[in-house]
Amino acid sequence: MIAEDALIARYLAPIAGTGALGLKDDVALVVPPQGKDLVLTKDALVSGVHFFANDPPASIARKALRVNLSDLAAKGATPAGFLMALALPAGLDESWIAAFAAALGEDARSHACPLLGGDTVRAAGGLSISITALGWCDAGRMVRRTSGRAGQRLLVSGTIGDAALGLRLRLEPDAPWARALPVSLRAHLADRYLHPRPRNALALALAAHAAAAMDVSDGLLGDAVKLAAASGIAGLHPRIMLDNVPLSPAARAALDSAPDLLQTIMAGGDDYEVLMTAEADRVPALLAACSAAGCDATEIGELVMAEAPAFLRADGAAVPFSSLSFQHDWPA
Amino acid sequence: MIAEDALIARYLAPIAGTGALGLKDDVALVVPPQGKDLVLTKDALVSGVHFFANDPPASIARKALRVNLSDLAAKGATPAGFLMALALPAGLDESWIAAFAAALGEDARSHACPLLGGDTVRAAGGLSISITALGWCDAGRMVRRTSGRAGQRLLVSGTIGDAALGLRLRLEPDAPWARALPVSLRAHLADRYLHPRPRNALALALAAHAAAAMDVSDGLLGDAVKLAAASGIAGLHPRIMLDNVPLSPAARAALDSAPDLLQTIMAGGDDYEVLMTAEADRVPALLAACSAAGCDATEIGELVMAEAPAFLRADGAAVPFSSLSFQHDWPA
Repeated sequence: MIAEDALIARYLAPIAGTGALGLKDDVALVVPPQGKDLVLTKDALVSGVHFFANDPPASIARKALRVNLSDLAAKGATPAGFLMALALPAGLDESWIAAFAAALGEDARSHACPLLGGDTVRAAGGLSISITALGWCDAGRMVRRTSGRAGQRLLVSGTIGDAALGLRLRLEPDAPWARALPVSLRAHLADRYLHPRPRNALALALAAHAAAAMDVSDGLLGDAVKLAAASGIAGLHPRIMLDNVPLSPAARAALDSAPDLLQTIMAGGDDYEVLMTAEADRVPALLAACSAAGCDATEIGELVMAEAPAFLRADGAAVPFSSLSFQHDWPA
Repeated sequence: MIAEDALIARYLAPIAGTGALGLKDDVALVVPPQGKDLVLTKDALVSGVHFFANDPPASIARKALRVNLSDLAAKGATPAGFLMALALPAGLDESWIAAFAAALGEDARSHACPLLGGDTVRAAGGLSISITALGWCDAGRMVRRTSGRAGQRLLVSGTIGDAALGLRLRLEPDAPWARALPVSLRAHLADRYLHPRPRNALALALAAHAAAAMDVSDGLLGDAVKLAAASGIAGLHPRIMLDNVPLSPAARAALDSAPDLLQTIMAGGDDYEVLMTAEADRVPALLAACSAAGCDATEIGELVMAEAPAFLRADGAAVPFSSLSFQHDWPA
């Protein structure tokens, strides 16, 4: 195992930004741009909980950074850098660290989000990675989760359900629906589970046109309920037209062969798409701005005053779901 | 075990600052004050590595926050808030969490450093806590580790060695030196190990008068060598007069009864005092400002151009040390 100082000098310093002070101080130093607010997010990933211990180190690195980037994207914030605490178990060899750091550096560069500092420690068990990411948005213009109101339309970026299906493929590779899928579609789903695609390209479109937003991490339906509840308005609920929820060709094929996968698709989580609301008259501009930024958004419903959330077929029939969100294992 | 949502609502939301948005969004929002630079630090603490699993939850909470506050103090930065990732093992009961959160909230209030956000996850092994703390300093005025130069005096706040002796008391309670110490002095050392005292009160004194600084976490001698090396000046080394290093009555009594404890005191770490340098003509003002802020500093040596670091008795005799820093267990 490589020594801590060498790990930092050899693998982390090369991916550090100027604010990291060469990773030679205990701190990072960031000069706030004029007229911007600071947006901060922190997501921790734990081996066996948020990824498989035998996932490729490059995939673990990308997921750890990207789930944080996704939070910034949904707030309309532009990434500025990140700090990372890396808890390493005994027995990791240097090639693992090299691959992890190389992928992390690549992602940091491609998202203009350099490493600013952090800590490397011995893990008490498996590997864990805690990242704090920073971003900037125009002063007073962060897109909040709490600003949903009745009548606003609900939209979502990209496609829903791919990552959750990718996880099921990992857990049940011999399920009939899995065996029925062409290899290329299986590969798409597996990739979407391993490699979230944070929608940072949409940040400016959101800041300009969205009323409220959050990223979809625990499941579309449950997260839509959370967004409505965050408004603090009693009786505000999402009304989602399930047939309008955008699916990839792979998810569509899976659902066609096994209709009960609707639960996994709508409530499985790990999508890292942006769930957003907009006033009806802003929807065309929001859709156009998302498309122009390279990622289509789709209108899937609205926020309404009602007794309860509604998840409907095109004919108006309500579809029951056994749960609305992925249930993380929680200490018991 | 309490559910995650209830944990956040019941124990974390009450200690959150306004920037935390009630912990209802995925992010924290901070408005940068005019004319300030942002200072960020991240330290992770792991059960069995940085604290004992059976330490009181209140002590673990205080240590986790205070080691981060100490980094801000040494940079002359004023704390602004923190984000926390908490990885909880199975089997922790709610009373543990209640005690942890209450102490964390108390410390956050007394240091004007509110919780801004974070993440709670299941641990892959023992408890771990990763904190990112934010602070502000006047633009361009952060006290760096890299600005040490030949001729600058070395000073240190508070007293050195107490925490490392407190750790040895935990590990070897029946050592002759430990048994010889009065109960009140043992209690002092035990407390200094469990409860770092970050020197945030000194931030303005440092910003006004110090040339370079860092907090002492791994051992005074090793950290002094690191500070000199961070300058990038080949041949710049610390020259420390060991008899001038400030000791508490407890550390003095321990050293008197067991002179070989000098190694533990000077290189044991966990001091969380500030090691600072100042030009000779600024030393009186720095000393006075520290005293006025409620924590004396002491001149212990200087930075010199030399072949190697020197750790000397008053008569000029060099004292050999088997190591200059605490060696953290590192994955092997």
